[in-house]
Amino acid sequence: MATDSWVNETLYPDWGQRFLVKRELARVQSDFQDIMVFESTSHGRVMLLDGVVQITERDEFVYQEMLTHVPLLAHGEAKRVLIIGAGDGGVLRRVLQHRNVEKAVMVEIDGEVIRLAKEFMPGIAGDAWNDPRAEVIVGDGIDYVRQAASGSFDVVIVDSTDPIGVGEVLFTDEFYANAARLLSDRGLIVNQCGVPFMQADELRETNIRRAKSFPDTWAYVAAVPTYVGGFMTLGWAAKDATLRAVDVATIRARAEAAGILGQTRYWTPEIHAGAFALPPYIAENLAC
Amino acid sequence: MATDSWVNETLYPDWGQRFLVKRELARVQSDFQDIMVFESTSHGRVMLLDGVVQITERDEFVYQEMLTHVPLLAHGEAKRVLIIGAGDGGVLRRVLQHRNVEKAVMVEIDGEVIRLAKEFMPGIAGDAWNDPRAEVIVGDGIDYVRQAASGSFDVVIVDSTDPIGVGEVLFTDEFYANAARLLSDRGLIVNQCGVPFMQADELRETNIRRAKSFPDTWAYVAAVPTYVGGFMTLGWAAKDATLRAVDVATIRARAEAAGILGQTRYWTPEIHAGAFALPPYIAENLAC
Repeated sequence: MATDSWVNETLYPDWGQRFLVKRELARVQSDFQDIMVFESTSHGRVMLLDGVVQITERDEFVYQEMLTHVPLLAHGEAKRVLIIGAGDGGVLRRVLQHRNVEKAVMVEIDGEVIRLAKEFMPGIAGDAWNDPRAEVIVGDGIDYVRQAASGSFDVVIVDSTDPIGVGEVLFTDEFYANAARLLSDRGLIVNQCGVPFMQADELRETNIRRAKSFPDTWAYVAAVPTYVGGFMTLGWAAKDATLRAVDVATIRARAEAAGILGQTRYWTPEIHAGAFALPPYIAENLAC
Repeated sequence: MATDSWVNETLYPDWGQRFLVKRELARVQSDFQDIMVFESTSHGRVMLLDGVVQITERDEFVYQEMLTHVPLLAHGEAKRVLIIGAGDGGVLRRVLQHRNVEKAVMVEIDGEVIRLAKEFMPGIAGDAWNDPRAEVIVGDGIDYVRQAASGSFDVVIVDSTDPIGVGEVLFTDEFYANAARLLSDRGLIVNQCGVPFMQADELRETNIRRAKSFPDTWAYVAAVPTYVGGFMTLGWAAKDATLRAVDVATIRARAEAAGILGQTRYWTPEIHAGAFALPPYIAENLAC
């Protein structure tokens, strides 16, 4: 087979994954980034932004479940959720699975990501786009958090690219300060922090920034098949340090009440609690 | 840079990882397999067997720690340990870190793997080869377990290739029956069972075989950076079902007594306990 039927991820200059491409579905240069969607033979449909894998149909459940269910169930009473990024709609769908959520605002800067996800990966978001509790804004998440009313959200979920390119502004001191302000008293924010085996700086540096605005910062892990390189970390910044120490039985009861229990393929109450136990090679990046 | 300076792993036909090669160090066709050792720019030195990554200097600690410390500390009184495969010596080194281990027998079928590991990756095994408690046999693990005296080992660790090629015979009914016989009353065996997101059959089928000879079978997980595709599973077969439910405090006390606590970069008592909590997409392969 000709070598040009493979797509090489270009996240790292000297190591990475490659996919056998069955068919390219879209290649668009948006105002913000290079977007590619293709059909793979191994992972269903795959979306790349600037050469970096964002989502595949086959393994998206791992990342989406862990990025959504962990903060919502750790909080326990999250009614208003702000999602930054996540243009594929997968986080929105998981947030709206929670019966007790009353409002989910999603702010994605690149309308082309939403359009292409709707066209080529419609199963990722399902009916979430039409849920009356959902408000989808194509706009700048930085502006949104600057202008949002104080205490107007219970959980913020940042599903961005790495802190390079368009995603960089989502990891600044100003962003976290605004996030702390717009969150309610027991509020928390989570964001993807890369794969520390390859990108330890990303976790270390953003954790220092989170700690300037939040009394409790940490990270939790998920083994996402196509974010290759061992555990990826999800950054955690909360006003209440007890939220990351909720016991398994309480998490289970909350998940049952929310309608999540038994609906997941990666997340469980035990995985939830265990995800905060970090290998030393990861934990060493969290000393502030 | 020319494309031929990359090595593509060939484990899966349509997806995989690739490494930028700084320098090829060895390429040997042994009696059993094709062995390649190269210097990468991202992971230090890397060994491939039949085109599949076995070990890299940079991430070997994850796999070795989890394959060794979990069974030894779950058992709690392991004095005699049998290692099948693991020609690089990394498991042997970790087993011998345990003060209470009196004998470690390692049976590797391919002497060329040992030779090349000693020459090009000497840090993996360190001084373990010369430890008076170690007995290193170049020979057939199948024969060894067939002839070993009943009750002569407390823990068996199988660090093999996938159940294809030379490793296949390490996953048969006969092998597990012999393992059960040579293990002492509270004995257990662990073996690498692949990455279930990509190789679910491997876990499912070998678990059925383990269950024919052991009353308690399960698996535990580790996120190994270069065994790409999410969690890898380590198969678990024990005579005593309580061994995989030992609490964190007991594991910690045992690790301290054994001289392991604080000596690890992935394993911790909490990671140990949490590793038995499986995502549903993995657990569904363990129904016998």
